[in-house]
Amino acid sequence: MSPKITGELLKHLRQVMKNCKYFSEPIQAYIIPSGDAHQSEYIAPCDCRREFICGFNGSAGTAIVTEQHAAMWTDGRYFLQASQQMDNNWTLMKMGLKETPSQEDWLISVLPENSKVGVDPWIIAADQWKNMSKALSSAGHSLVAVQDNMIDVVWTDRPERPSTPLRTLGLEYTGMSWQDKITTLRAKMTERKISWFVATALDEIAWLFNLRGADIEYNPVFFAYSIIGMNTIRLFVDLKRLSHPTLRDHLQLDSPSRPELSIQTFPYESVYTELQAICAALSPKDKVWICEKASCALTQVIPKSHKAPIPYTPLCLAKAVKNATEIQVLRLFISAADKAEELRSQQKDFVGLSFPTISSVGPNGAIIHYRPLPETNRTLTTNEIYLIDSGAQYVDGTTDVTRTMHFGTPSAFEKECFTNVLKGHIAVSAAIFPNGTKGHLLDSFARAALWESGLDYLHGTGHGVGCFLNVHEGPCGISYKTFADEPLEAGMIVSDEPGYYEDGCFGIRLENVVLVVPANPKYNYRNRGSLTFEPLTLVPIQVKMMNTELLTQKERDWVNEYHRKCREVVGAELERQDKKEALEWLIRETQPVV
Amino acid sequence: MSPKITGELLKHLRQVMKNCKYFSEPIQAYIIPSGDAHQSEYIAPCDCRREFICGFNGSAGTAIVTEQHAAMWTDGRYFLQASQQMDNNWTLMKMGLKETPSQEDWLISVLPENSKVGVDPWIIAADQWKNMSKALSSAGHSLVAVQDNMIDVVWTDRPERPSTPLRTLGLEYTGMSWQDKITTLRAKMTERKISWFVATALDEIAWLFNLRGADIEYNPVFFAYSIIGMNTIRLFVDLKRLSHPTLRDHLQLDSPSRPELSIQTFPYESVYTELQAICAALSPKDKVWICEKASCALTQVIPKSHKAPIPYTPLCLAKAVKNATEIQVLRLFISAADKAEELRSQQKDFVGLSFPTISSVGPNGAIIHYRPLPETNRTLTTNEIYLIDSGAQYVDGTTDVTRTMHFGTPSAFEKECFTNVLKGHIAVSAAIFPNGTKGHLLDSFARAALWESGLDYLHGTGHGVGCFLNVHEGPCGISYKTFADEPLEAGMIVSDEPGYYEDGCFGIRLENVVLVVPANPKYNYRNRGSLTFEPLTLVPIQVKMMNTELLTQKERDWVNEYHRKCREVVGAELERQDKKEALEWLIRETQPVV
Repeated sequence: MSPKITGELLKHLRQVMKNCKYFSEPIQAYIIPSGDAHQSEYIAPCDCRREFICGFNGSAGTAIVTEQHAAMWTDGRYFLQASQQMDNNWTLMKMGLKETPSQEDWLISVLPENSKVGVDPWIIAADQWKNMSKALSSAGHSLVAVQDNMIDVVWTDRPERPSTPLRTLGLEYTGMSWQDKITTLRAKMTERKISWFVATALDEIAWLFNLRGADIEYNPVFFAYSIIGMNTIRLFVDLKRLSHPTLRDHLQLDSPSRPELSIQTFPYESVYTELQAICAALSPKDKVWICEKASCALTQVIPKSHKAPIPYTPLCLAKAVKNATEIQVLRLFISAADKAEELRSQQKDFVGLSFPTISSVGPNGAIIHYRPLPETNRTLTTNEIYLIDSGAQYVDGTTDVTRTMHFGTPSAFEKECFTNVLKGHIAVSAAIFPNGTKGHLLDSFARAALWESGLDYLHGTGHGVGCFLNVHEGPCGISYKTFADEPLEAGMIVSDEPGYYEDGCFGIRLENVVLVVPANPKYNYRNRGSLTFEPLTLVPIQVKMMNTELLTQKERDWVNEYHRKCREVVGAELERQDKKEALEWLIRETQPVV
Repeated sequence: MSPKITGELLKHLRQVMKNCKYFSEPIQAYIIPSGDAHQSEYIAPCDCRREFICGFNGSAGTAIVTEQHAAMWTDGRYFLQASQQMDNNWTLMKMGLKETPSQEDWLISVLPENSKVGVDPWIIAADQWKNMSKALSSAGHSLVAVQDNMIDVVWTDRPERPSTPLRTLGLEYTGMSWQDKITTLRAKMTERKISWFVATALDEIAWLFNLRGADIEYNPVFFAYSIIGMNTIRLFVDLKRLSHPTLRDHLQLDSPSRPELSIQTFPYESVYTELQAICAALSPKDKVWICEKASCALTQVIPKSHKAPIPYTPLCLAKAVKNATEIQVLRLFISAADKAEELRSQQKDFVGLSFPTISSVGPNGAIIHYRPLPETNRTLTTNEIYLIDSGAQYVDGTTDVTRTMHFGTPSAFEKECFTNVLKGHIAVSAAIFPNGTKGHLLDSFARAALWESGLDYLHGTGHGVGCFLNVHEGPCGISYKTFADEPLEAGMIVSDEPGYYEDGCFGIRLENVVLVVPANPKYNYRNRGSLTFEPLTLVPIQVKMMNTELLTQKERDWVNEYHRKCREVVGAELERQDKKEALEWLIRETQPVV
């Protein structure tokens, strides 16, 4: 991985920052967030502006360029990767470390007095704009919305915005029609006295209309907005995409069953002017729901007196709690026999040293979100730890499983670290906690064993997982960051993925997708009810990597029960498919630990 | 405990709410927070307005009276107590339960359109004002600052504001002169380009000037404000209190050593006009620090362009990290032999059934912050659990220890609950965690064992503890509430006090005061360093209450090591004092568990 050479690019950008064609006065700094106009975590190539300017292609990071400096903030998952992808023009700002200044503090420390800081209002969220603007103002500077994106000006070969075919999802996958989802949404709006709802998150729009696209790699979404009133539904999307009869039928575009379920379609770009028109016609009491994380540009269209910003939309919440059909579909995919088969054949192929693809071996495992590139590929050996994070962003089954293995003899230190990660994984997976508990209260369970040895990992422990949607979704998660996460509820699905990363040596992560289910402990304090997790992922955890002496009896019981379930569910499937070799492998890998 | 009869009182208050002598238009609701003008947790009798209007005398609670309704919000520590102290005119709003509306939501649900909600701007914090005002405005209502306090109008026999003698604290207690504290504060102000700092919290002012008072029961503070500039120090206090020569000498009122350390004194009430005068003379770049929790009245004096609100003041942070002298003094007090002697004699006295004061027996133990009153006193028996929370608010030693004991035979359920509480206590006390960890990340450790049995407690796990100051102090704590707590640092002192309360039956709490100290685990990830806790409180934990089968070996080791230290430190002191009987009791109570 050689860094992107950015000297000329930065020179060009700094020239543009002084060019009054774009603003009334030159700007002294320009902020390049990593998102798109929908605040997506993963973005289309045309929106990879932060990667274009600095070279770092991780999923999270914000670049800021001033006349003298260029700095990029990212979190612990990406420290190593970012340092390898950026050249010396860039300062890496390691978020989460005590000595790292916030973007605001850093700007204040480097800017000359009364500076203007520019940002594209479509790709900064309204809440971020507010905080940044406040901090800069209090130091005598100002945050300026620059309508033309400055990166696009210097990005001569920027790709087109994708417009892939849309596919419809039937009731057998979704468990609920889009008409029923609209009706449920409107009931929530009535309850809270809300007249309009502006949907901007791509996965929420895909979920609402039971549609999928492929505009963003690994994320089955499509570029769209939607504005829902009590009697109207407006969908903003590249209109060319709506020509197929199946699609028109699914959306009842030509013959709506009821007038209030009639969808009006508009070009994607017209959302701004349509929202302006809606806002111009509001009655004094009308309130408009928009997510606090929506773009600053769209949020500012709604007059303050009508704006009702919310941290999470009702769609986000409804989508997080999976219905019986969705759970059923997920169960089939996640516990499928394919994964066991894949792991087995890798191990088999390895014996002949003919292994075709490698997820991450040895030092590359310490790059938390490493994806293989030709120049960094390493050959599997029996000396190194092998970390495989599989399917993270794949549409067909969304397994998101991570296993860490060694095909030779792991060192005592590697085993100790693995075992501490395993202890953390079990502590979360087996935790019983009251209804109403927010995920961040469980994060330390995953770290306690590592902390006791003076170790830690610099990423969260879990994220919400979508149903044939984004692998990372809100509003629940398990993290030391106390973002406004919603309480965990039965039916929610999250990942449980503690890790340990030794820079330059190896990486360890153990990840299962788990379903929140009711628990039945001995007592029931104040009738609150209790919850726990049921692992949906059923893939053996390599016993060779464990120092079983460090495990308590309870932890050993958990491992054995988990492996028993792997045998039961996956084994039955392998038997049905008559995959003898795979079944033997499974039996071997799930021997009880004592 | 019979409830306060409030029918006539509420009638009178509602008349006043319609009386345009106090406002331009009648108000439809009046908010009565529990604080004073300094946002103190514990308050003087003249400030107990919420207690006066509703009868509930716990330390936390907010009452709201509308034309039709009267409701009072408090947290889990006080549910039982509040329900017993309030009559049927009042609705108890149980904070922390899912079904309980917030004050804002409740107001919006009961108020007629375009209502005016009044509040005394001196006793509502600026940040609370802002949130409440925003929520009400968004629903078409408005929050109104009412200068005359409406409760004072109906409270005919309201007590005077106290003005107790001030005492000075020497270097042997404080470890740092007030002059050095001012100099350190000014260095922080220079660093952050701040010209003025407004101190409003009573314990911060007492700490800054190394003075103590007795204006508030159990809290050694005095009513004062202070405004510190780069060259001036203004102290606002009842001037009659400054006549004593020792005091004048301590503060160098008559012959300051250096002009910038000269204290100008003003009457307590003149802080508002003095701050106005200071603000009128500010240069354009001058910034004024004031805590976000300071009163709305004072905060609004500072023009927006000059206001630099902070969640915690530099005094709050400096005060939290104890210096060597303070730790030394605390160690002496907290591990003093008095406590052991006291517990022993209670147990001894109990044998003759002549025990004079009872902290809390049986069902009263379930009232989390119970204080004995004649009508609810119960006699100690051998059938009931005895909970003693000692010294919670006492000036002389501030032990804040809680123990739970049984002088007969505890039931299996009582032992099970006690053991789960003990497991939580140990999990926090023995936790090792990285530097920079915030206390709220440790809260679930205290609950995990209880949660596993379906149990819980509805209060935080720990609070900061002052040095000869308030027993409850910021900015650190251990709580599921993720208030903006500051990371734990070596030298900070907090309590570790999980509990379990079975309404109508018994209460269990185990509380030690613990010091944050460096830990030295095997590894040191990214050189961050690790921390752990050292118990300062050394009082035996009753073995009879433990179901030792539920304890792990590690937990048994912790109990034995703790009891060994009790013997070593307290035993030595008892031996020195030749208290044979107490020593025998100590030896008996600290037998190793196996």
